[in-house]
Amino acid sequence: VTAYEVILRKRQGEELTPNEIEFMVRGFLSGAVADYQMSAFLMAVFFTGMSDAETETLTRVMLGTGSTLDLSEVSGAKVDKHSTGGVGDKLSLVVAPIAASAGVRVPMISGRGLGHTGGTLDKLESIPGFSTSVPPEEFLRLVSDVGMAIVGQSPEMAPADRRMYALRDVTATIECPPLIVGSILSKKLAAGLDALVLDVKVGRGAFARDIESARDLAARLKRIAERLGLPTTALLTDMESPLGRAVGNALEVGEALAVLKGGGPQEVRELSLALAARMILMAGLAPDVEGAARLAERELDRGAALEKFAEFVGAQGGDPRIVDDPDLLPSGTVVEEVRAERAGFVAGIDAREVGLAAVALGAGRTAVGDRVDPAVGIEILRAVADEVAEGDVVALVRGNDSGRAEVARTRVRAAFSISGEPVGRPARILEVLE
Amino acid sequence: VTAYEVILRKRQGEELTPNEIEFMVRGFLSGAVADYQMSAFLMAVFFTGMSDAETETLTRVMLGTGSTLDLSEVSGAKVDKHSTGGVGDKLSLVVAPIAASAGVRVPMISGRGLGHTGGTLDKLESIPGFSTSVPPEEFLRLVSDVGMAIVGQSPEMAPADRRMYALRDVTATIECPPLIVGSILSKKLAAGLDALVLDVKVGRGAFARDIESARDLAARLKRIAERLGLPTTALLTDMESPLGRAVGNALEVGEALAVLKGGGPQEVRELSLALAARMILMAGLAPDVEGAARLAERELDRGAALEKFAEFVGAQGGDPRIVDDPDLLPSGTVVEEVRAERAGFVAGIDAREVGLAAVALGAGRTAVGDRVDPAVGIEILRAVADEVAEGDVVALVRGNDSGRAEVARTRVRAAFSISGEPVGRPARILEVLE
Repeated sequence: VTAYEVILRKRQGEELTPNEIEFMVRGFLSGAVADYQMSAFLMAVFFTGMSDAETETLTRVMLGTGSTLDLSEVSGAKVDKHSTGGVGDKLSLVVAPIAASAGVRVPMISGRGLGHTGGTLDKLESIPGFSTSVPPEEFLRLVSDVGMAIVGQSPEMAPADRRMYALRDVTATIECPPLIVGSILSKKLAAGLDALVLDVKVGRGAFARDIESARDLAARLKRIAERLGLPTTALLTDMESPLGRAVGNALEVGEALAVLKGGGPQEVRELSLALAARMILMAGLAPDVEGAARLAERELDRGAALEKFAEFVGAQGGDPRIVDDPDLLPSGTVVEEVRAERAGFVAGIDAREVGLAAVALGAGRTAVGDRVDPAVGIEILRAVADEVAEGDVVALVRGNDSGRAEVARTRVRAAFSISGEPVGRPARILEVLE
Repeated sequence: VTAYEVILRKRQGEELTPNEIEFMVRGFLSGAVADYQMSAFLMAVFFTGMSDAETETLTRVMLGTGSTLDLSEVSGAKVDKHSTGGVGDKLSLVVAPIAASAGVRVPMISGRGLGHTGGTLDKLESIPGFSTSVPPEEFLRLVSDVGMAIVGQSPEMAPADRRMYALRDVTATIECPPLIVGSILSKKLAAGLDALVLDVKVGRGAFARDIESARDLAARLKRIAERLGLPTTALLTDMESPLGRAVGNALEVGEALAVLKGGGPQEVRELSLALAARMILMAGLAPDVEGAARLAERELDRGAALEKFAEFVGAQGGDPRIVDDPDLLPSGTVVEEVRAERAGFVAGIDAREVGLAAVALGAGRTAVGDRVDPAVGIEILRAVADEVAEGDVVALVRGNDSGRAEVARTRVRAAFSISGEPVGRPARILEVLE
């Protein structure tokens, strides 16, 4: 096997053998396959795709390049939730404590924001003292003792994914379903899970812009995960507009806390409960989805999930006082108002534009290694379907630099579209693949 | 502009601006665009193509990365002939002396064999003493004094092409029409030509396997060349079976000499005359193609082209005695006979397989930098349409190693297909684009 032959075969749309896929991935790590060959290969995959058999092999080989956590000593079912990425998506911060307080073990490996989407690790790090770099043995202890932990990918887990992702990120091959599947599942399998709940986002703020491509991605993820022995449920959820009202790291922690306390935006509460219920169901802690939903709601409403969150924050070194006093979270000093340009009804808020506005403020990254400002972000005051008068403040931009805040304000204003006719409130949960 | 954005736009099939194309090519040379980004970009071009405007810009930018020969001091019209590559294609060795002896100035920049196709430089270097590395000022002097020179690409000419070609060669992006156009024309334009005659090969031994893709390539080359001020005529010629009877470096020089002496395979003679006539016509040395054909035939038949070839060989340091005594050319010591497996008519000889057999013998390269053995090759004794009895010797394999010769013999035997029915002799010239 040579890299040239494998690239050529994939360029011609042929199905690769397991041996060829293993050669490319392991060769890339060892140096036998040059990075310029890998990037050409990945672009060929972008255009000609991969069969399920190829994607399964890719995932298995990527997984095999690193170590797998052994969670067998942790009692109970280990279930994670994974989102394909969106704007204002603070669901992990609500879902994980609900599920953990219901008895699910949640060993969550999360990522950082890149492009217009946020990352759970960045959000958590806005909590003073919180650490997302946790060695494997400590991670196991947290999952066992607290019932949940949220950490970054360790260097030992699927190193091929880190190298390949970094290459894809600079060669425009991120948006490729089989490569997304390999990347997500190799990490999830390395975490030693028993089951997985996927939140596949759909819309202009998501990788999958339309329902067809989201269905394709969700179905692929589910098929390949199950070929690899990982039972998976996938929810397709709307990401046309930002989820909830807060976009930005500390602001989103604040909104998650509000939901954990029984308040916050209704859509964040509902989607959190739905995802937590699926985790509870897959962990075998309820006989059916209705029972799981009742259990999730009970854990949220009796304050157990909030307590679990506080315990989790403290266990990972964060200041648990933020739970009672969210003002301890950092906050931007420059506040700009975004006003409605006409009277009517909010017809849409472009999630992608709001995400890019947050990046412009410093809440996200334009390159790997960029520092994020935990304090900055956007507060949406009028959501889709809300009625507005001309000049009403529809959003606040919270920054730490007036120039960047002004750029963000312009972007957020452009993200709002206002209609003369009343607009229905869109559903967030579009489809469920069980 | 960033490399990421340009790759993304090309991946999405968008038309790039001149600025973006210049950024990629010059950035690649300067290091601002990483080789892994360039290879991903080239693969995206493979799949989404380039418009004529983009291809023109690519060619112009590649040309601009190096120096252009100034042939203005050389009197007369400077015309080159370029082939897209085939098996047994020794036409340059016949065409250039005919055209030069008719008064055309032929500043020919040639290439080396790679893959299953041969290269004119390798053929010429089978002549003892012959040098294809000639500094620009010496090249000018040869074109002026002798009327022709055949040399390799100098490091100063279109350096972007050399770097990009080397990358394409190891990332399976050679077979891409706009990139082929940029590569060929940037070099041809750097040679300061007045006109160009293209021999676009069609068939299993060529890049263009079918007439449609050959027409597309020929028409693209002609359109872009003329946008860049280089009048171009393209012939589409058959490369299903090897051209002539000899495949291998010294063997092909021998066949070219036979044709220059008035003998040799009829198809090599006819195709050489047709190409030389086009060069003569484009140089303005004949009023029409019929007059140009008569002039070419006269130069060949009166021995002037043979004399020109001897003068050219001597001027580039080669031993001109090979003209009278071709036995001075190196010759393989191991001879294997390929016999017909059944009686009938030769229906086809797979040019690609014969080319690969020659590579197996050592006549070609499997990697840049491989040394070629000038002495080895294949002699075809029965051509397409010839009748054969079972056991007739249809080809000879001339090698310097019995193991490699045996491999080549098996390949050559498999390349022959024999039919029970009589087979017509195929035409070599399929179409002409003027």
